[in-house]
Amino acid sequence: MTSAAEDATRVYTAAVIVIGNEVLSGRVQDANVAYLARGLKAQGIRLREARVIPDVIEVIVAAVNTLRATYDYVFTTGGIGPTHDDITAEAVARAFAVPLERHPDAEAILREYYGESINEARLRMANVPRGGTLLDNPVSRAPGFQVENVLVLPGVPRILQAIFDGFRHRLAGGRPVLSRTVTAFVAESIAAPGLAEIQRRYPQAELGSYPYVRNRRFGTALVVRSEDPRLVDTVAEELTALVRSLGEHPEVSDGESSG
Amino acid sequence: MTSAAEDATRVYTAAVIVIGNEVLSGRVQDANVAYLARGLKAQGIRLREARVIPDVIEVIVAAVNTLRATYDYVFTTGGIGPTHDDITAEAVARAFAVPLERHPDAEAILREYYGESINEARLRMANVPRGGTLLDNPVSRAPGFQVENVLVLPGVPRILQAIFDGFRHRLAGGRPVLSRTVTAFVAESIAAPGLAEIQRRYPQAELGSYPYVRNRRFGTALVVRSEDPRLVDTVAEELTALVRSLGEHPEVSDGESSG
Repeated sequence: MTSAAEDATRVYTAAVIVIGNEVLSGRVQDANVAYLARGLKAQGIRLREARVIPDVIEVIVAAVNTLRATYDYVFTTGGIGPTHDDITAEAVARAFAVPLERHPDAEAILREYYGESINEARLRMANVPRGGTLLDNPVSRAPGFQVENVLVLPGVPRILQAIFDGFRHRLAGGRPVLSRTVTAFVAESIAAPGLAEIQRRYPQAELGSYPYVRNRRFGTALVVRSEDPRLVDTVAEELTALVRSLGEHPEVSDGESSG
Repeated sequence: MTSAAEDATRVYTAAVIVIGNEVLSGRVQDANVAYLARGLKAQGIRLREARVIPDVIEVIVAAVNTLRATYDYVFTTGGIGPTHDDITAEAVARAFAVPLERHPDAEAILREYYGESINEARLRMANVPRGGTLLDNPVSRAPGFQVENVLVLPGVPRILQAIFDGFRHRLAGGRPVLSRTVTAFVAESIAAPGLAEIQRRYPQAELGSYPYVRNRRFGTALVVRSEDPRLVDTVAEELTALVRSLGEHPEVSDGESSG
């Protein structure tokens, strides 16, 4: 039991497991981690880790079991399609030591969607670990599913996004992490001492610096992140003053602009 | 000791650790894993895992120690710049239980590059775990470094690529993984039974299927991967025949085209 006061400051955490030989082979660049990261952030849940692992059942089982014991939520992406290498549902069933069963609601959804062209491969997408609940897929119907704190999503970004957006507002989270970005044509190593000094004075704020080159000039995006809006205000003002003290013009924007 | 015959079939493996609050916050989408994956593949080294972790020293130490004991190579990206949150060098020193020292060659490189504008923040980039060797940076001079099987690279893609391309041909690897892609307007679930049958007959080949939608038609890219060029030829022909048997026209290309 936690008191209400403790709940208010509870930090909610998540991990993403990208199940994807095609990411490890360099065929595609993963886009799902960034999408989930932003959505979770808005929900007050911090993405703490992401792992890309191959389509090997023992490896998936081990990752699911390690991460579901460590974080509040675990999201898997990929491996829930109709082919022989789509083994995520089986892996999650094994991780929870429950049988993989045909889910009647999922089967009904697929039979309605595919009609005459239903086949065994498509029906595989109705296999869900016992006790799992479905996550609605408004795009291509084959649902994701949730078992306890593990949420199983497809790898195709457009479909993942539609499913995730459908349930993410229902996820329990803490205070959202707010952020502000101060961008200026200051080289990172010139800003470094002042930045370290600000971090020392505000240890509760997370400070990041991201260098870039634009029009052949070195610049840096200075980002402050915190759940405390007043702390974000205060530190952003400090960052602005730092840039001015270095003789440059700061540009301030809400969130984490990419410089 | 391994015999020459064993060496010829030895599989070389690698992991990448992305050290990046900015990836976990969704600020940027990682591009380095895909780049390293493709370069390692050409070198006969298989990327088996990638982890995105936060800029927290204990977390970095733990990941480095877990993964360097598991894979032939571990690459880290990010956290070797001039600011207070650049803690990768310190973390790697701690992982190997050696002191972090100013490397004289790295210091000389930085002093020559920065001249009068050298400062303490920039000199931090010359700190290397004892026993580490430098990895040349032709772009912005601040070198990466290697300690045993751990290779430490920056996070900025342009710089990471320049450093990696400078040494990757010297990495010991096995036979490169070859691949071929057969693309056709066949829905993945229609190809699934034939694909599973081909996988059953050629268990040594890695078969992947990646659905896409183009001009409102469903298509699938079927990819075969193997170190054995004859096996790639044979399986690609089987995939081509499968597509034809489904009444569609296959397009065959070397490598892993994105469909």
